[in-house]
Amino acid sequence: MAMPDSRQIGVFDSGMGGLTVLSELVQKLPGETFLYLGDTARIPYGSRSPRTVKRYSMEIASFLEQHDIKMLVVACNTATAHALPDLTARMNVPVIGVIEPGVRALLSATQSGKVGVIGTRSTIKSAAYETEIHKIDSSVKVVSQACPLFVPIVEEGWMNKEFTRLAVREYLGPLHDQGVDAVVLGCTHYPLIRHAIALEFPEFKLIDSSVEMAGAVSAAVHATGIASAGKGSVRIMVTDVTEQLSSLQDLFFPHPVAAVDEILLPEISAG
Amino acid sequence: MAMPDSRQIGVFDSGMGGLTVLSELVQKLPGETFLYLGDTARIPYGSRSPRTVKRYSMEIASFLEQHDIKMLVVACNTATAHALPDLTARMNVPVIGVIEPGVRALLSATQSGKVGVIGTRSTIKSAAYETEIHKIDSSVKVVSQACPLFVPIVEEGWMNKEFTRLAVREYLGPLHDQGVDAVVLGCTHYPLIRHAIALEFPEFKLIDSSVEMAGAVSAAVHATGIASAGKGSVRIMVTDVTEQLSSLQDLFFPHPVAAVDEILLPEISAG
Repeated sequence: MAMPDSRQIGVFDSGMGGLTVLSELVQKLPGETFLYLGDTARIPYGSRSPRTVKRYSMEIASFLEQHDIKMLVVACNTATAHALPDLTARMNVPVIGVIEPGVRALLSATQSGKVGVIGTRSTIKSAAYETEIHKIDSSVKVVSQACPLFVPIVEEGWMNKEFTRLAVREYLGPLHDQGVDAVVLGCTHYPLIRHAIALEFPEFKLIDSSVEMAGAVSAAVHATGIASAGKGSVRIMVTDVTEQLSSLQDLFFPHPVAAVDEILLPEISAG
Repeated sequence: MAMPDSRQIGVFDSGMGGLTVLSELVQKLPGETFLYLGDTARIPYGSRSPRTVKRYSMEIASFLEQHDIKMLVVACNTATAHALPDLTARMNVPVIGVIEPGVRALLSATQSGKVGVIGTRSTIKSAAYETEIHKIDSSVKVVSQACPLFVPIVEEGWMNKEFTRLAVREYLGPLHDQGVDAVVLGCTHYPLIRHAIALEFPEFKLIDSSVEMAGAVSAAVHATGIASAGKGSVRIMVTDVTEQLSSLQDLFFPHPVAAVDEILLPEISAG
């Protein structure tokens, strides 16, 4: 039997949205120590170029590596879409992205063979979900839709307004019309808008990537024999302490946190 | 009479929204050479902390200074709100912010003595407009409202949707109920949502800060004798070439541009 490994699990996201993933993780792995980094000074990644998202992700990975992590969890869909191969190549510890676990659940859920993917502009443009889906089953039809207004709607707390129903109808109507029966919420903020989607389109099976990813991380921790035997804890770091920080933290992570620290990431020059 | 001064006028914004200001400037000052810098790798400033906005603004000012500018135009409301005094102290050329010209027009427009200010979360939280208004007339009542969904609505091109009418009513209804008769559009994106506001609240006098600011810059150029005698031109630089870049450029700046260059800003360490 492997010795307990008390090193931390590093988790990062472009901002506070990845706390939906961390929230699932602490429930599935209560004995682990988590170090979460939210790049709140440079959010949103979803509207940046692939090259810039890659650079930001590598800067964060270097930083977390210096904090002695035993696994890197990429909670950000956009970073997973653009930087996962580079991160995997660069890091000496296992790297787990958010896309593949969501795709597996999506493919189990569909009966029509037509699935929907919703996410930020950048995630959708990358076609990363589509590529992953077709790697597993090339016969599945994928309908993708960027929903740039969902993140600001969630951060404004307008999830239950008439306004939001109109946006849900605008974005997801075309998926419904094309016979999609299962939709993956390909952005960490979207689980909070799940209820509004379910009200408007009750026939969709909605896949929450946060839940699926937590399952995959838990399986990987046990399979590689790096589970901790300690008392779990959570440390949150951000690159900017914004006015909204504590309200977003309450929204996405309903658990106690000792402290939130601000750090400055060393910049890696482009090229 | 002063000699013609062929140096450039530097203009910066957190992203492409400041092109609404540049668009007014090239019309008012067709003989000038403009260097525009949009910090598209770190937009939006509106949800960052004052300290981070200040740091970003100083980094940009240092960069533009190396490009031999004769005046610095801060087209970003959030940067003006948080960094104008620091920028003015640091630069050896005149620095013009976007807030003061808008405030003067707002105070000329009101008859009820009750004015409205709308902007990003950070601009509103800074109370910079309120402070500037009360410096000129302390008896004016100011009703402020952050409208975080307006920027994504404009960038999504949803200005004329039912959805937007609901958002306008939600945000501006309270200003109307409190007897406000003049409202300053305190964000570079908002002129594009002006029509939707005017339809819902035709009684508001709407002040476009871009127009007011261009007037102030033109006056300053002539007053300080630094006008150019050349053939005007425009150069646009950004910190990230995003997918949306050209569509946003078309939206905000309906003039020909030779090229858009990507640059990496040297980072200034915090503290």
